[in-house]
Amino acid sequence: MSKAISIFDTTLRDGTQGEGVSLSADDKLKIAKKLDDLGAHYIEGGIPGSNTKDIEFFKRVKELKLNAKVVAFGSTRRKGSIASEDANLKRMIESGAQAATLVGKSWDFHVHTALQTTLEENLSMIYDSIAYLKQSGMEVIFDAEHFFDGFKHNPEYAQAVLTKAHEAGADWLVMCDTNGGTMPHEVHEIVSSLHRMLPQAHLGIHTHNDCELAVANTLSAVQAGARQVQGTMNGYGERCGNANLASIIPNLQLKLGYECVAEDSMKQLTNVARYISEIANVNMPINQPYVGNAAFAHKGGIHVSAILRDSRTYEHIVPELVGNKQRVLVSELAGQSNIVSKAQEMGLEFDTNSANSRQIIEKIKDLEHQGYQFEGADASLELLIREANGDMKELFTFESFKMLVEKTAGKSVVSEAFVKLNVAGASVYTAAEGNGPVNALDNALRKALVQYFPSLAHMHLSDYKVRVLDEKDATAAKVRVLIESKNTENTWNTVGVSENVIEASWEALVHSFRYALLQERILDEPDARSLPSHGLVNH
Amino acid sequence: MSKAISIFDTTLRDGTQGEGVSLSADDKLKIAKKLDDLGAHYIEGGIPGSNTKDIEFFKRVKELKLNAKVVAFGSTRRKGSIASEDANLKRMIESGAQAATLVGKSWDFHVHTALQTTLEENLSMIYDSIAYLKQSGMEVIFDAEHFFDGFKHNPEYAQAVLTKAHEAGADWLVMCDTNGGTMPHEVHEIVSSLHRMLPQAHLGIHTHNDCELAVANTLSAVQAGARQVQGTMNGYGERCGNANLASIIPNLQLKLGYECVAEDSMKQLTNVARYISEIANVNMPINQPYVGNAAFAHKGGIHVSAILRDSRTYEHIVPELVGNKQRVLVSELAGQSNIVSKAQEMGLEFDTNSANSRQIIEKIKDLEHQGYQFEGADASLELLIREANGDMKELFTFESFKMLVEKTAGKSVVSEAFVKLNVAGASVYTAAEGNGPVNALDNALRKALVQYFPSLAHMHLSDYKVRVLDEKDATAAKVRVLIESKNTENTWNTVGVSENVIEASWEALVHSFRYALLQERILDEPDARSLPSHGLVNH
Repeated sequence: MSKAISIFDTTLRDGTQGEGVSLSADDKLKIAKKLDDLGAHYIEGGIPGSNTKDIEFFKRVKELKLNAKVVAFGSTRRKGSIASEDANLKRMIESGAQAATLVGKSWDFHVHTALQTTLEENLSMIYDSIAYLKQSGMEVIFDAEHFFDGFKHNPEYAQAVLTKAHEAGADWLVMCDTNGGTMPHEVHEIVSSLHRMLPQAHLGIHTHNDCELAVANTLSAVQAGARQVQGTMNGYGERCGNANLASIIPNLQLKLGYECVAEDSMKQLTNVARYISEIANVNMPINQPYVGNAAFAHKGGIHVSAILRDSRTYEHIVPELVGNKQRVLVSELAGQSNIVSKAQEMGLEFDTNSANSRQIIEKIKDLEHQGYQFEGADASLELLIREANGDMKELFTFESFKMLVEKTAGKSVVSEAFVKLNVAGASVYTAAEGNGPVNALDNALRKALVQYFPSLAHMHLSDYKVRVLDEKDATAAKVRVLIESKNTENTWNTVGVSENVIEASWEALVHSFRYALLQERILDEPDARSLPSHGLVNH
Repeated sequence: MSKAISIFDTTLRDGTQGEGVSLSADDKLKIAKKLDDLGAHYIEGGIPGSNTKDIEFFKRVKELKLNAKVVAFGSTRRKGSIASEDANLKRMIESGAQAATLVGKSWDFHVHTALQTTLEENLSMIYDSIAYLKQSGMEVIFDAEHFFDGFKHNPEYAQAVLTKAHEAGADWLVMCDTNGGTMPHEVHEIVSSLHRMLPQAHLGIHTHNDCELAVANTLSAVQAGARQVQGTMNGYGERCGNANLASIIPNLQLKLGYECVAEDSMKQLTNVARYISEIANVNMPINQPYVGNAAFAHKGGIHVSAILRDSRTYEHIVPELVGNKQRVLVSELAGQSNIVSKAQEMGLEFDTNSANSRQIIEKIKDLEHQGYQFEGADASLELLIREANGDMKELFTFESFKMLVEKTAGKSVVSEAFVKLNVAGASVYTAAEGNGPVNALDNALRKALVQYFPSLAHMHLSDYKVRVLDEKDATAAKVRVLIESKNTENTWNTVGVSENVIEASWEALVHSFRYALLQERILDEPDARSLPSHGLVNH
């Protein structure tokens, strides 16, 4: 039997059922791109027509020209109706997705309790819906909801459901442990029996983590003959989450010899998992297997001296296989390869043996220790490297800012910012209002600079994220602000860290303006001819 | 074969190897008491003599008169020495613990690389150390480090190690997957073979979560004949953590029919797990299986209407069996069934046909349209429903706030807040500084209220999240702030939405304080006797 596994990602659909996970259409598109880079074979985007985000996603995802198949999710036709007249099925076809996940009931109890129809009608609903979608030319993945609970209560009916879906032409028959309560040995027995019963069918597995067994159950099913695994990155999903693809993929490929993704893509796993946690704005637990920050961190003294002799003593894989790295918590020895590759990308010479390079690496390590994260802030990292390399000239220097928010009962809130800079030897003092404190700061800073650097009029902030770094004492903890900025050609990301959200925002904002100027190659002071005639500018 | 399982907790020893987990002697004693209440059979407290905390723990734990056996941890004697002269072994005996965990090498590679001794000498080290501890009257649990890796590389030697420990009189032979890289089917095969080889021995299992399989591996071992499970509460431990007893205990007992703890104790599981996360000062992931806040939380509208008919439709166990409870999340994906069930959960009558109820549903829909999200803000939703129901009395009214952040080059940023409220007819005006704007507002608001409501001194903010809702124009876009608050008993979540991050934070903050007062059942105005004697309070 083939060892090739089809990776089906439902982060964008089932993942958003998780508490605290909410993705905009833009977020979904960014994540889809990353999943495609990783090598997912199917990317389930949402439920066509259910809300404006999903409508926009299916419309715009075509422009990305992904290698992965884009999948639309929906339920079987309503009871007592005709498939070709079913609004949901029609919307799945109209979405333009190459494949459809059709979910149907396979537990008799659910047919009676939730659908409130007959077992026979449910079989017809499944058959008709699959046949209709197949006629439209879509690939059809049939998700048998509550399959394992159904099998345990009424095996004949659960089998009849899969047989019916197979007869209707479904390309994949996926057994779902919807409630997450099934044990690994049960999954193995049940999938094996279905594999014997339908040897020609392509079987898949979809598990949930309610017993902390979603990954194990997925492996059990694959070992019993399933060849598609459905899951989400970082295990996002309803209740305790879906099966975590970031653990399943390396387990299958590095431990059990199955083929999931290209070897080079596997090295992107940590990066992709962390990127998605940033976009979803959900903290990744530091102890997350394979991709977490502590996954290869060693604290115990005996462990540390042993890994220095031979890292196999306390590491189950070489961390670089999944793009992670070893960390020794007593003395940080972690890698500089990211910095080197970033510098090369920028066209800078970067000799790791030079004093200058070592200084940059030390500085970045120190900043990361303080809570900066450059994975999501390329522009800030570039400024840092250029500065250390002497490539940057300061175009303005900071003198002070004040930011005031005032609210009186029954009146609108007012935000004002006052910014004092020195630009080309002139002191510039501006005041501006805004819709909020960061907008007020943005407006005041822009007002101060745009007269010297008119190109800044074309840039704007397009995303703003705040992350609390130490949740133990929330309002007195450090926060990290990530800002995304755009102009007509480019998008760039900057970072600021402080105990004060306003100060962190200011830092990221200033980086953004400096990077905008760098892009325009205004590396020197503004030309005298373009300066306003007066030295001191007050607004 | 008996179905009784011996629960061995090592939260206090292996758990503290986790990054960010640090426990004082007092913390350890509190946790030991809770674990004893839960019914753990063995509580491993630490390494006697290794540090002052552990010395104090072993001294003071005797006063607690636990039912559980207290266990001291240590390694086999040093190579080329005599067990009765080994300082570590002596300290284990002197600790007064009833049982000893003795860790020894079972992987030949480690004997050579880490111990740098011969295979024969390692066997003697194991035999001598166990025999010496047994002579002292202690129960001895032998932890065979790297047993599974050892078995895969040199099965004869791994078997010889366990045989030697058995001959020396060890009460338990525990197979450790120290690096966490073993697959469940391998664990099953290896434990089965040892069970056949040493049918009289009591076998145990100790796993790590590096492949997200620690729980599955533990179940595999029990199904193959192991009768002691070693793990930590919430899975704390080095790298990706140890096997999580909070998932293992209910899986073994509720799913697989083994006997771990008394039925009544099982109902304490959620409480114990959350208590330990509080003492360890590590946030519990909301999606933690069985005991997490989202473990039985339902978001999808179809799911919600089904669980209202019969909760077995989407719940694998009755949450009360482990002391958890069902929660219905209100979200864009759901209809009004979520709100009805939320009101029922609060003990409110809620007839969807009444004008009042319709009004609440309309209001919630309208707020969600504005960007509020109640799935992560139960407390704000409850305030809203109670208000509409006339159950809430305002304990204070807002008059105004001002918030100022000021930064000058070379100086620290300063945040100040000024809050004016009316409490019980008195105008209260306070000023406070903070580490950031929200902290300053929190401090000023607390200062204003705590004199009237002293219980507020025990609450604090434990998480703070900011989400930008419309990314097209980031700094002028709406933001949603979610605040998590805690007091000694409870955790609650509130939400605020505004174009202004400070106003949104203020709103969530005020909700949090109002909900804290609601919990204290201070539904009426403060009693005149508890009021400060002067009407106007300025700070």
